[in-house]
Amino acid sequence: MAIASNKQVLLRNFVKTTPIVSDMELKLSPTEVPLTVPAGSGAILVKNLYLSCDPYMRGRMRDFHGSYIHPFTPGSVIEGFGVSRVIDSDNPDYSAGDYVAGMTGWEEYSVIVKCQQMRKIQNNDAIPLSYHLGLLGMPGFTAYCGFFEICAPKKGDYVFVSAASGAVGQLVGQFAKAFGCYVVGSAGTAEKVNLLKTKLGFDEAFNYKEEVDFNAALKRYFPDGIDVYFDNVGGAMLEAAIQNMKLFGRIAVCGMVSQNSQSDPNGIHNLFNFISKRIRLQGFVQSDHLHLHPQFLDYVTKEYTQGKITYIEDMNYGLENAPDALVGLFSGKNVGKQVICVSKD
Amino acid sequence: MAIASNKQVLLRNFVKTTPIVSDMELKLSPTEVPLTVPAGSGAILVKNLYLSCDPYMRGRMRDFHGSYIHPFTPGSVIEGFGVSRVIDSDNPDYSAGDYVAGMTGWEEYSVIVKCQQMRKIQNNDAIPLSYHLGLLGMPGFTAYCGFFEICAPKKGDYVFVSAASGAVGQLVGQFAKAFGCYVVGSAGTAEKVNLLKTKLGFDEAFNYKEEVDFNAALKRYFPDGIDVYFDNVGGAMLEAAIQNMKLFGRIAVCGMVSQNSQSDPNGIHNLFNFISKRIRLQGFVQSDHLHLHPQFLDYVTKEYTQGKITYIEDMNYGLENAPDALVGLFSGKNVGKQVICVSKD
Repeated sequence: MAIASNKQVLLRNFVKTTPIVSDMELKLSPTEVPLTVPAGSGAILVKNLYLSCDPYMRGRMRDFHGSYIHPFTPGSVIEGFGVSRVIDSDNPDYSAGDYVAGMTGWEEYSVIVKCQQMRKIQNNDAIPLSYHLGLLGMPGFTAYCGFFEICAPKKGDYVFVSAASGAVGQLVGQFAKAFGCYVVGSAGTAEKVNLLKTKLGFDEAFNYKEEVDFNAALKRYFPDGIDVYFDNVGGAMLEAAIQNMKLFGRIAVCGMVSQNSQSDPNGIHNLFNFISKRIRLQGFVQSDHLHLHPQFLDYVTKEYTQGKITYIEDMNYGLENAPDALVGLFSGKNVGKQVICVSKD
Repeated sequence: MAIASNKQVLLRNFVKTTPIVSDMELKLSPTEVPLTVPAGSGAILVKNLYLSCDPYMRGRMRDFHGSYIHPFTPGSVIEGFGVSRVIDSDNPDYSAGDYVAGMTGWEEYSVIVKCQQMRKIQNNDAIPLSYHLGLLGMPGFTAYCGFFEICAPKKGDYVFVSAASGAVGQLVGQFAKAFGCYVVGSAGTAEKVNLLKTKLGFDEAFNYKEEVDFNAALKRYFPDGIDVYFDNVGGAMLEAAIQNMKLFGRIAVCGMVSQNSQSDPNGIHNLFNFISKRIRLQGFVQSDHLHLHPQFLDYVTKEYTQGKITYIEDMNYGLENAPDALVGLFSGKNVGKQVICVSKD
C-alpha cells in the first residue's frame, strides 16, 4: 500500500478583520497517509493539483455562523475549490486517473466523502486544468448567472464592473461586451487598468486609487448614467454607483461587499435614489442558480475555444505559498484569478 | 358669466428640511376668476372638493430637480391629487357636473389643461368621493403594485409594513392578510397600533417609538425572519429589517425613504445581508405600473363594497387648514389617510 506524507495548510485561529499569513500554518500530517480509501466508504482519494484562492474564503475564517457557508475549524485544514486527480476510488462514479473539480482541502492529498459535489473534468489541451477554478469554476458561474440572470441586461446597456480584472469581473466585462453592452471597469493598479483595455476588451477602465471622488469618476465615464452595476466591492464605490444609476438600473452584489460594508463606518446614505430611479439591488450566490450551470459550461467552453473569451490567471507555485496568495487577494496583489499550483500532475 | 373669488394655498419658499406651515401661504386670488373656460382651450374648470396630503409632496417643496417629479414653483399654487366637480368644460370628454379625480391645485377652483390625467369617477353611496384620493387613488395603487408586483408575495409569507396605519401601509397590510400572509405593522402611537390590530386585521403591531432597539423588536415579532418588507420609512427601521430578512427576502421601498436617508447620518451598514440572504431591494413608483391600474380598481372596489377592506381617513375641513394638515404628516399627526375637505359639493 502506497503511503505519502501530506503537507497541509491549517487555519490557526479565527480572523477578526483581514487575514494575515500567520493566521494560517503549514504543517506535515503527523502520520503518513495511505493512498487508498477504505472499502465501503464511497469516498475517493485525490491528489490536489490546483487550489483556488477566493475572496469569500475570508468569510469562512471568521467566527460567524450566520452566512451562507459555515466557517472553517481552527486547527483544521482549510477548504477550497480545487482541481484534483483521483488516486483511489471506492465510488463507482470515479476511477483512478479521473480529473475532478470541486471542494477539497488545502493539502497534497484529500479524502473526499461528498463526491456528489465533485465535477469530472477533461484534461486536454483545449482548456487548462486550472481554468476549472476560474473561467469554468465558481467565479465564472458567478459572473454568468450574476450578469445574465440578476442584472437582466439589454443590448446597448451601460455596464460598470468593479474589481474588474478579478476572477469574476474580467468575465462579467467580457460577457457584457459580447452581449452588446458598453463596459467600463475599475481596478486598483495601472497594470490592471491596462489589461482591461488592451486584453479584456473593456471600452474604458480607471484606477480607483487615483480617484479622489468616485462619484465624479463615474460621471466622467457614464455621463448618461449606468444601467447595470456588477458590484464586487461595496462601500463607497457602491454608493457612488447608486448615485449614477439610470432609471430602472440594476445592481448585482456578490463577493466582497461583506468586508467593505463592515469596514465602512459611513454606510450607504443615498437610498432615495432607489425610489427616484426605481433601482433594483439584488444579492445573489451562484449556488442558487445551478439550473443554469449546463448552459454556462456550454457557453464559456464555446466562447473560450473559439478565442472569443480570454482569462487571466495569477498562478503561484507550491502549497507553502498558498497563505501568502490568499492574503494577497485582500490588498489586490493578484492580477487576475489567483490560483495555487500544488503539483502539475 | 359667473365669477368667484378663489382662495389658494401657495408655496412661499423652497424648503430645505421638513416643511412648516409658514412655508405656505393662504391668499385670495387677486382678481375674481370667471367660472368658464375659453372656447378652443380643451380645458375644464373644476371646483375642488377634496385635496390629498401625501408625503411625496415634501419632495416637490425642495429646490431639487433630479427626482421623478418636478418641484413646485415658489409663489405659485401647490399642486396635488384632488377630487373635483366639473363646472365648465371645453373638452368633449367632460361635462359640467362630472366628478373627476387627478392632479389639481390647492385652491377652490382650478383650470385643468391636462385633462388626460383626470379620471372620471362616480359620486354614489357605494364609495365616498374622498376615497378616490386614498383607497382608489395613488396611495391605494402604490400599495397594490408595490405589494403584488414588487414584493412578489407567496401565501404564508411573513410580511412587515412600516408606517402601517398610513394611506399606503393600511392597505398593504390588508392586501397581505387577504392574500394569506402573516402581517405585522409598525406605527408611532398606541392609538394607531390599536387600529392596526382591531380595525385593520394585522396579526401584530407595535409602536416603534417605544422600542429602543428595532432589531430586537423585529426579532420578537418575526422569530423566523421576514419574507417581505414594505418600507415606507427607510433609515434605522430599514436597516433593522435587512438584518431580520429571511433567505430570498424582498424589500419594496417607496415614499418617505428620502427624508429618512437624508436625515440619517449613519446610513445603511449591513448590506452583506443582501448576499448572504440573497435579498432583493427595489424602489418603485406607482406610475410605472399603470398597466395594472384597471385590475387594481376592480380589486379594491370589489373588496371594499363587499366589506373585506376598510379604509381609515383623517379628514380636515377647510383649505385654510391644508398647510397644517400637510405638515402634520411628517410628525405622524394624521391617523390614516390625510385629506382636506374644501367643499362637500
